[in-house]
Amino acid sequence: MKNLENRRVLLNARPVGVPGADYFSIDEQPVNPLKDGEFLIHNSFLSVDPAMRGWVNDAPNYSPPVPVGSVMRAFAVGEIIASNHPGYAVGETVSGLFGWQRFAISNGDDVMRRVDDADLSPTLALGVLGLNGITAYFGLLDLCDPQPGETVVVSTAAGAVGSCVGQIAKIRGCKTVGIAGGADKVHSCLNAFGYDAAIDYKNSNDLEADIGQACADGVDGYFDNTCGPISDAVFANLALGARITVCGTAAIQEWQPLPVGPRVHRQLMVNRARMSGFLVLDYKARYAEAVAALANWVRSGEITYREHILDGFEQAPQALQMLYRGENNGKLLIRVD
Amino acid sequence: MKNLENRRVLLNARPVGVPGADYFSIDEQPVNPLKDGEFLIHNSFLSVDPAMRGWVNDAPNYSPPVPVGSVMRAFAVGEIIASNHPGYAVGETVSGLFGWQRFAISNGDDVMRRVDDADLSPTLALGVLGLNGITAYFGLLDLCDPQPGETVVVSTAAGAVGSCVGQIAKIRGCKTVGIAGGADKVHSCLNAFGYDAAIDYKNSNDLEADIGQACADGVDGYFDNTCGPISDAVFANLALGARITVCGTAAIQEWQPLPVGPRVHRQLMVNRARMSGFLVLDYKARYAEAVAALANWVRSGEITYREHILDGFEQAPQALQMLYRGENNGKLLIRVD
Repeated sequence: MKNLENRRVLLNARPVGVPGADYFSIDEQPVNPLKDGEFLIHNSFLSVDPAMRGWVNDAPNYSPPVPVGSVMRAFAVGEIIASNHPGYAVGETVSGLFGWQRFAISNGDDVMRRVDDADLSPTLALGVLGLNGITAYFGLLDLCDPQPGETVVVSTAAGAVGSCVGQIAKIRGCKTVGIAGGADKVHSCLNAFGYDAAIDYKNSNDLEADIGQACADGVDGYFDNTCGPISDAVFANLALGARITVCGTAAIQEWQPLPVGPRVHRQLMVNRARMSGFLVLDYKARYAEAVAALANWVRSGEITYREHILDGFEQAPQALQMLYRGENNGKLLIRVD
Repeated sequence: MKNLENRRVLLNARPVGVPGADYFSIDEQPVNPLKDGEFLIHNSFLSVDPAMRGWVNDAPNYSPPVPVGSVMRAFAVGEIIASNHPGYAVGETVSGLFGWQRFAISNGDDVMRRVDDADLSPTLALGVLGLNGITAYFGLLDLCDPQPGETVVVSTAAGAVGSCVGQIAKIRGCKTVGIAGGADKVHSCLNAFGYDAAIDYKNSNDLEADIGQACADGVDGYFDNTCGPISDAVFANLALGARITVCGTAAIQEWQPLPVGPRVHRQLMVNRARMSGFLVLDYKARYAEAVAALANWVRSGEITYREHILDGFEQAPQALQMLYRGENNGKLLIRVD
């Protein structure tokens, strides 16, 4: 381990909204020696997730904001290359909150899971077999409760979470309608992710009418990753007894002060609909259940996925903006060089 | 039955928003002869309910709008004075959708229930033992699911539904916080309906802060009868895992086009809160269960109620506006003269 140099992406300043490249810098630091109970991970892939916007903003959130001057918080997957921890052995692959850096020292607390599906790519631990897939699994099955024959609408339908939601709904016998931005993503929805219909919100003159046409019997389940105008158009098409999972708000740039939009109360009341906020971290105790189901669906080909891999640390500072502009085609990852 | 003259309140024109006196007229008509399977009810009290605004507007709703030129749809309670129906006997008291009129002919379809609690006032069949109480019962217990020690907030807290919600939550061991307009209603909340705290939204400089102070551990359950700014202030104080019942939208004058307000998505997500639309009619099969429980609580004094009784048909045309302006103090009823 002697003379091992760590490359790190640091948060430089407290951003408002989605941070661009200016808010990050890259440095090199020697790796600290391992203490008792610690082990060293050589990250192979770093994750770029919508939640990271919340982690760097100074608003009330699920976790304290990333301190300015420290390594950017992020999921990563890598191999253990040294260990003073009795529970983690050299050679094991693990995923967890290891940060945007080449080497991470862990005591096990930030490990999400051991990646022991040797037949599957380790990158899946950051996507369909990571929080993206687990989010889709519980957010859809527990809160939308989709029944065979029902219509399920998904926003960011070609994204890392959305594509998985659509495919699980399909496995459950639902009619699936995806909403995505641009012809490429609509093509992915229809040809890679098996949606029955897909709507390009960027090229729709009347999104509410287009959703109404695709969902002739109304929307029974809506997995909402965007909030904003897409969500408004879906809410105008709810079926009686609709269930909405509020999983993300990609279309909203700023939450302070609260942005305004059409009030949902009457639509919920008239349709006796239910709108539930979702956070995957609440399901920690059940992650293994989801990963086992998802891995089997990947193996059987019932769930397919796309990955968009950026090469090298230099790509990291602008990756979040790329994600929020929707320029990625598949789960956005950074390969550690 | 010969020569019996019916007095009726008719809807004259299709209103937008809450109809004032101009939209109604009063006429007299001979009562039609009873056919086979029909019975005649002499109404003693007519109900004035917030839902009636929706019944006269031409917007999508739970039931078709009241036709212009016909008797205003309304709940009433009365005695059967003639019957060609084998299931309904002269002398029985019944409540149901008998309309704003002195005499109603029914075939039983519009009967809500037989009022057989001879020890209790028949007016209760339009309030705490009618849809108001049943709404409070299921809207609170089924959708807010209040647990002992939790904090439950109620808007229109001194109203016919709200006062009942607060008292049921108290019976279930919750801390109850009422929001009402004006010193009289706040006084009723504290002294008649047993709220632990009551907030006068009309005299609050910072409703969000006042609710925060009254709900030190956040709002676990919110029974929303208003929507609008009151609801916005409650949503800013939600506790983790909060449940919101959307029962009414008294603060909103018009729903076409949809009014705008702060988007609730992030508050629901951060708190993993659930917001559910409620319609009491969905619980028809379980009304008896609610009425039995409510009647026992009335008898034991655990639930008290207020009635605001207007005398005579002439009061009916302006009664809905009175209700929406909050000028009533208790369940608003019209005594049939």
